[in-house]
Amino acid sequence: MPDTLVLPMPAPSGVPASSLPVPPAARPPRSSTTLGEQLALRVADRIQRGALAPGARLPSVREGARQHGVSTSTVVAAYDRLQAQGLVEARRQRGFFVRESGAGRIGSGTTGTSRAGVGSPAPAAVAAPVDATALIRSMFHPGAAPAAPGMGTLPESWLDRALLDRALRRTLAQSSEALRYGDPAGDESLRQALARRLGGDLGIAASARQIVTTLGATHALDVVSRTLLQPGDAVLVDEPGWAVEFARLTRQGMRLLPVPRGPDGPDLAVMAQLLAEHRPKLYVTVSVLHNPTGHTLSLAAAHQILKLAEQFDLTIVEDDTYAWLAPPHAPRLAALDGLARTVYVSGFSKILAPNWRVGYVAAAPALAERLIDTKLLGTLTTPGLQERAVAWCLDQGLLRRHADRVVQRLDSARVRVVRLAQEAGCRFAAPPQGLFGWVDTGVDTERLAGLLATAGWLVAPGSLFHATPRATTLMRVNFASALDVRFWQSFVSARNTLLAATRG
Amino acid sequence: MPDTLVLPMPAPSGVPASSLPVPPAARPPRSSTTLGEQLALRVADRIQRGALAPGARLPSVREGARQHGVSTSTVVAAYDRLQAQGLVEARRQRGFFVRESGAGRIGSGTTGTSRAGVGSPAPAAVAAPVDATALIRSMFHPGAAPAAPGMGTLPESWLDRALLDRALRRTLAQSSEALRYGDPAGDESLRQALARRLGGDLGIAASARQIVTTLGATHALDVVSRTLLQPGDAVLVDEPGWAVEFARLTRQGMRLLPVPRGPDGPDLAVMAQLLAEHRPKLYVTVSVLHNPTGHTLSLAAAHQILKLAEQFDLTIVEDDTYAWLAPPHAPRLAALDGLARTVYVSGFSKILAPNWRVGYVAAAPALAERLIDTKLLGTLTTPGLQERAVAWCLDQGLLRRHADRVVQRLDSARVRVVRLAQEAGCRFAAPPQGLFGWVDTGVDTERLAGLLATAGWLVAPGSLFHATPRATTLMRVNFASALDVRFWQSFVSARNTLLAATRG
Repeated sequence: MPDTLVLPMPAPSGVPASSLPVPPAARPPRSSTTLGEQLALRVADRIQRGALAPGARLPSVREGARQHGVSTSTVVAAYDRLQAQGLVEARRQRGFFVRESGAGRIGSGTTGTSRAGVGSPAPAAVAAPVDATALIRSMFHPGAAPAAPGMGTLPESWLDRALLDRALRRTLAQSSEALRYGDPAGDESLRQALARRLGGDLGIAASARQIVTTLGATHALDVVSRTLLQPGDAVLVDEPGWAVEFARLTRQGMRLLPVPRGPDGPDLAVMAQLLAEHRPKLYVTVSVLHNPTGHTLSLAAAHQILKLAEQFDLTIVEDDTYAWLAPPHAPRLAALDGLARTVYVSGFSKILAPNWRVGYVAAAPALAERLIDTKLLGTLTTPGLQERAVAWCLDQGLLRRHADRVVQRLDSARVRVVRLAQEAGCRFAAPPQGLFGWVDTGVDTERLAGLLATAGWLVAPGSLFHATPRATTLMRVNFASALDVRFWQSFVSARNTLLAATRG
Repeated sequence: MPDTLVLPMPAPSGVPASSLPVPPAARPPRSSTTLGEQLALRVADRIQRGALAPGARLPSVREGARQHGVSTSTVVAAYDRLQAQGLVEARRQRGFFVRESGAGRIGSGTTGTSRAGVGSPAPAAVAAPVDATALIRSMFHPGAAPAAPGMGTLPESWLDRALLDRALRRTLAQSSEALRYGDPAGDESLRQALARRLGGDLGIAASARQIVTTLGATHALDVVSRTLLQPGDAVLVDEPGWAVEFARLTRQGMRLLPVPRGPDGPDLAVMAQLLAEHRPKLYVTVSVLHNPTGHTLSLAAAHQILKLAEQFDLTIVEDDTYAWLAPPHAPRLAALDGLARTVYVSGFSKILAPNWRVGYVAAAPALAERLIDTKLLGTLTTPGLQERAVAWCLDQGLLRRHADRVVQRLDSARVRVVRLAQEAGCRFAAPPQGLFGWVDTGVDTERLAGLLATAGWLVAPGSLFHATPRATTLMRVNFASALDVRFWQSFVSARNTLLAATRG
């Protein structure tokens, strides 16, 4: 029977198996695993390693129970977990089968075609992993655990719900912008407040006319790349960097040129070589509290980058998504060059309200006009309500106060998580700073993520952050969301499973 | 002096000229024109006809006053108007000069390059006018007259501010979605409410899983075209149709294939021929209350379109932006084919709250998944607050009641505007229906629009609605915003100016 398999099975430990088919993400994390979970974990690992091929049939529930001397409800619980995970599917009257990989679904869409249409990429140019979108989407699952260590935002409990409500209520009372489309450049009061913030706090001289609001920083990056790039263009990106940016650029038909990111900034020798060989139009970079490493650009590196930019007619997109978590006076490229070759992007998802979707871009006046055109054709305008509410939070100094509190709390959390991670056998690949730790686990983190998801924990494997698809033992840890000691217990347990599989 | 000119000047009429440099759009419309306005009007017309070339210098204020025997403040007022209109610019110490055309600015951006990169378009394929974005942006000017007859939305006074506030306040009180990114597919309560609305009111069977929320219908159209099209693809569009759609598709590198739109639907013979010759992937159409004609697709035409779509493997994007203004039981393509080859797009800007930016797309399940990926890469998620507020308005039946009131009021307004337009010498090129009238003025409407803008009225010239650039005597009139008899007086006056210039 080549399409069935006998499951390796741990000895029953007496822990009762849950028979409720609860999706793993919605399940509260636990420090000890049930029998059903253990079974699911092992099957999941075999699927992820490819030891169980897509289409293979799992033993029937009754047969599985008989083989392993467990109750049928234990097998049902395991299969339910695997099904909720998307790893297996139930076919009516026929049983459970290993699913075709989720990567296939995304890869068969526009992405593949788009890439094929671009022509032969130059040797150093790469395409983002095809399954990035699928991996990213799992991070936005509505049932995602409230304290998922792989999350990209602050936990809900760290944000100031009362402030948000107050800001919105005030704004509601004072305006009737809802009744018209609004200004395509964005709400005037927010653009004025941002001009003050940029000038006052960050040393970036920009008038309100140079600022265009967007639906979060992601939309800002999208508007910029749609304005400045044509399919087939080469784009410098940080390696490691953020998967959403890689996936979008790849889908738009761009060729990614990864530049290794070190503690002080990009590898300037590699950068110069890529500039000379490929003449990329754009360099997209997180200069301060880089995602995922936490690195911040040095002043010297910033100066060198701008010199290279001038030499090779390069535009730099400075993504300052973590601006409010950064130490005071971290230098911005946009401050150095006065928005001449730099386009500055930021937003409020990492400090205020992820779902308000307020972001912005600041650019040279002529470019700002072109960005408005792109925004207009894509969305006409953006909702003014949240924009005015952010303006109010800025103007009243309430965002600054909130950010100060968050930074203090994050400093404490970081200390604790660093200790927990090190006790769990992890090594920090970069000095811990900001929201994220870049952690070496010693095992393949994509498989690790699969196992931990089965146990109810969302983590961010290193493969999400590489423009060049590769297996990696690194993962990104959210310092604010990895404080639960039970996570680290699950982590150790999952890692041991992987190490045992490697040795066995 | 080849770079100066002597202005033709009407005899002083004794009306005092305003010396305040007020931008025309912010100025209350008036039935009689000042001396300064008359002067500005004539200069504007000469610029728009090309009789005054870009770069030409206007006489100095003192010289103009001397030549025409008017006060310098009259000339200042005229030049200020022209400057606010963007027709002339002041150069320090040198005087006023005719500006380079706005088309140059837009055309020198991405649009031009993008089009060049596509390769030789097939004979029937065209590019949208390069200055569409500039024209569209003028419609979003923050100071745009509150009752501009060229507007695309209902006047503010027709919308229900109290309802919007109530909906938002209720939603604020009940949720804390702001603290997380939210579901990339969109708010669940809205998608459920939309599924009920589509099934119950429009006969379109769609589950909540098939619905993806967007930042208005414009964003929905953008997400669809980014998901389904590659640069260079051919796309069928209605002719006339909506400039934003033409401009976006053109900027994305698509080749537009205009299909003449008649009272019952597209010209099926032309459509069949274009399908056979160019194999377009997509047909983007407003089937009900088509913009700008007001035409609604007949059931027979809908059936034929779907047969053609099947024969030529065509996907149809049905833009139902005016859904809430449509008569009951107007047939939708999506209802006929059960979203098999049809993607359904709609929103709430035309009935509820333009700046809430709530729209959506309904599609076959597999396509809906791909649309979510595209949305995610472009904006991550959309703000849940307005989405839940719309859901509440739908669920409580309040939107339906509001829409019924608006439709009644619009019916009365339409009767009045039809009479005013006919008395002003206009002919309706299509039977008046819905929000827009498609009106033949007998004079070139782009020049007319320029003159009326100078008098403070925003109108929508027919050239905005043609995929193929052409001079046209047609214009679109918003029935809800053209009730002011003073507009029609200005209209007659501007038209007479143009007719006199033609004869002269």
